[in-house]
Amino acid sequence: MKKQLTTRQENFAQWYLDVIAAADLAEHSGVKGSMIIKPYGFALWERIKEELDSRIKATGHKNAYFPLLIPESFLKREKDHVQGFSPELAVVTHAGGQKLDEPLVVRPTSETIIYDTYSRWIESYRDLPLLINQWANVVRWELRPRLFLRTTEFLWQEGHTAHATEEDAQQEVLKMLGVYKELAEDILAMPVYDGEKSETERFAGAKRTYTIEAMMQDGKALQAGTSHNLGQGFSKAFDVQFTDADGERKHVWLTSWGVSTRMIGGLIMTHSDDSGLVLPPKIAPTQVVVIPIWKDDTEKESVMKAVEQLKSQLDIRLEVDDRDFQSPGYKFNEWEKKGVPIRVELGPRDVQSQQLVLVRRDTSEKETVKLSVAATRIKQLLEDIQIDLAKKAKENRDQNTFMVENYDEFKQKVEQGFVRVFWCGEAKCEERIKADTKATVRCLPFDKQLIQEDGRCISCGKQGKSEALFARSY
Amino acid sequence: MKKQLTTRQENFAQWYLDVIAAADLAEHSGVKGSMIIKPYGFALWERIKEELDSRIKATGHKNAYFPLLIPESFLKREKDHVQGFSPELAVVTHAGGQKLDEPLVVRPTSETIIYDTYSRWIESYRDLPLLINQWANVVRWELRPRLFLRTTEFLWQEGHTAHATEEDAQQEVLKMLGVYKELAEDILAMPVYDGEKSETERFAGAKRTYTIEAMMQDGKALQAGTSHNLGQGFSKAFDVQFTDADGERKHVWLTSWGVSTRMIGGLIMTHSDDSGLVLPPKIAPTQVVVIPIWKDDTEKESVMKAVEQLKSQLDIRLEVDDRDFQSPGYKFNEWEKKGVPIRVELGPRDVQSQQLVLVRRDTSEKETVKLSVAATRIKQLLEDIQIDLAKKAKENRDQNTFMVENYDEFKQKVEQGFVRVFWCGEAKCEERIKADTKATVRCLPFDKQLIQEDGRCISCGKQGKSEALFARSY
Repeated sequence: MKKQLTTRQENFAQWYLDVIAAADLAEHSGVKGSMIIKPYGFALWERIKEELDSRIKATGHKNAYFPLLIPESFLKREKDHVQGFSPELAVVTHAGGQKLDEPLVVRPTSETIIYDTYSRWIESYRDLPLLINQWANVVRWELRPRLFLRTTEFLWQEGHTAHATEEDAQQEVLKMLGVYKELAEDILAMPVYDGEKSETERFAGAKRTYTIEAMMQDGKALQAGTSHNLGQGFSKAFDVQFTDADGERKHVWLTSWGVSTRMIGGLIMTHSDDSGLVLPPKIAPTQVVVIPIWKDDTEKESVMKAVEQLKSQLDIRLEVDDRDFQSPGYKFNEWEKKGVPIRVELGPRDVQSQQLVLVRRDTSEKETVKLSVAATRIKQLLEDIQIDLAKKAKENRDQNTFMVENYDEFKQKVEQGFVRVFWCGEAKCEERIKADTKATVRCLPFDKQLIQEDGRCISCGKQGKSEALFARSY
Repeated sequence: MKKQLTTRQENFAQWYLDVIAAADLAEHSGVKGSMIIKPYGFALWERIKEELDSRIKATGHKNAYFPLLIPESFLKREKDHVQGFSPELAVVTHAGGQKLDEPLVVRPTSETIIYDTYSRWIESYRDLPLLINQWANVVRWELRPRLFLRTTEFLWQEGHTAHATEEDAQQEVLKMLGVYKELAEDILAMPVYDGEKSETERFAGAKRTYTIEAMMQDGKALQAGTSHNLGQGFSKAFDVQFTDADGERKHVWLTSWGVSTRMIGGLIMTHSDDSGLVLPPKIAPTQVVVIPIWKDDTEKESVMKAVEQLKSQLDIRLEVDDRDFQSPGYKFNEWEKKGVPIRVELGPRDVQSQQLVLVRRDTSEKETVKLSVAATRIKQLLEDIQIDLAKKAKENRDQNTFMVENYDEFKQKVEQGFVRVFWCGEAKCEERIKADTKATVRCLPFDKQLIQEDGRCISCGKQGKSEALFARSY
């Protein structure tokens, strides 16, 4: 239990795994690439789901559920889509004791089966927009799995909407990207750059893909959510048509967008430190842990009375760790590794002095507070911690986002973080940069910051079509 | 839209499908046996999930998530288990473009992969009880699918707990059966008989299986939830041991319990009528639908003002159907088929008279109520409807539960409903009865009602070991 974590400095990748193990979030299963999400890790996912689901519903979407198993032939109907996903498919060839006439793929994503369904559901413009979301598990065969970040099976939500016009679809795509940004920044305290993906990085079958990109503490990017304008490629492949107000039959405009358990990986690598997990209060399954301290039953009684009183004043996610077979020191250590934002220590002498001790997880700051004002102070502190974590993450991100003079400087800076440059828009330059530095175009950011006059591609020197954010990534 | 539903009298099975279609709950997909749960059907599942999840957590369980794909060899470790599930398995033989060394089965239930995990998680008696639940999709190959009742893929929760003693495990099994009974009766207004399954009907690998059995309006039984005492069969097969307080290594005692989307089928067949779905207020995704009526914008304004005022007074699940391209009559019909407990009609003359019209879905009773007391009346009515639906379902169930004098009478009565008889406990008699009548032992009910002196098996006449409830079933 006292075992130290690998430090970030020593080995960031190992530190990440150590944090997960120490906080008891998840582990690998016997099946290659598949993850077991342990109760504390799943509680984090439940919190993310709760926050995101309410926002998805508030923007007019309804949840539904579509089948896990998809006929192989469905995948083949949209050519870019099948090309993108073929190498990752898990295929059911036998069922009910017999070989199947047609193999079924375990969904890697559900565009095909959902749009096949939409071709039956949509008849007229009155059926549009059709705004549906699904919470589901998906399988993409993974050769180099990493907990939360790349797993053969993962949990996610996938929104699938159909619209009468291209403009409506585009508006939807940006709206949902905005919802993801809000979730990341306001709830997870994880600042993100939003923008469009380059053609190379686009979703297989999409016309345009938008993304939010967060920066991890090692300067690498994490794609935390994507939103796709699918144009009419899928609606033509699956014959999803509607009769418009003008009486004409038209193909619908489709969008899809998703956020997955990968978000938890981003959360971990944004805030945690060498002592373990650090959680922003808004997402923490347990916001405050109370550790009562006593030596005998008399002390226990008076301490627990004070604890109950504090609890009754707080409408937050609070846990009391009253296990009697573990020492307070052991508990402090355990909850520190679990990243609970505030620890409350309360012993018999505290009760006598009508006070308690608060310890912030993010700064280790200790303060002694009168019982009479403890509830108010705790609520304030939770807000402060949320703000401070967001600020710290943003500072780190901004300090490690660079503008550079030339390609040599680019190569140097991209080892540390994100680099903003002009890029000619050609895949050839993208490939060269990747070969040289392992960095890819994370997005063409909405928020442009380079001075237009500098518009020359960092790689080839031609007129730079777009401002791009390059980084190495997870 | 005006198409009449098949009546229950005409053809109960077709009526069931008509109700589902008319309420827009679900449909079959292109994949044999797989169901698409449409938004309104999924909203029902979300309500059930919400009610059940909070009860599962309140009884000390935590949610987690285990892999979908299970190595085939895991299934084979418990011999009864593999025998029971083998015919229903869907098998992944290829993934990532290659043939797998070992095939993976798509989970039909997760005992094997979870207990394999528990063998790593559990070390000492301090780790017990281990109380875990999982919400997941499972696949069991289905040759004669029926929406919600029997589908190749279905959604469920599966609880899996480990205990230090047999008594603790047995207590857990009965506690969770009690939670299921409460969900069925208090929330779904669906009365159930609880009891133990016969050996023939036991879960594959269980020592004892307990069940709640509801009666559908055609007199058939629906198994609505099961809870299994797994003894030590699985803990021996997967080597799940702990060091007890006495220092000895012992195998844990395991339980599992589950409720699935099948519950929705039971809900439909308990309350619905020849006009469509009927929903108890506590489970209805929409408890009240308001249909404002107007001819012009002036009328619309005054009507909508009254609607907004009503809405602000009610903290319930209320929907306002203000679509302007459908007539009020069309809307009445549509919401009737969707089973919304109360319909509110509000037109310009109502506003003038400061009143509105309430219509109960279950009885079609109409009443005119002053706006000033409408909110209070609606809340009262929702409570009344919940109670009345439960009462009606219970009366129907009780009237169709019979005690009989002899086997001839048994054969006749079991066509109509449940029959309580003594049974010798032999599988031979169970088989004979099934062959003669299609009826099976639904359970050995906890609540015994037969007079002990009558204790002779209804089939063979030998001393009847147990009181049993026989019925045909879904």
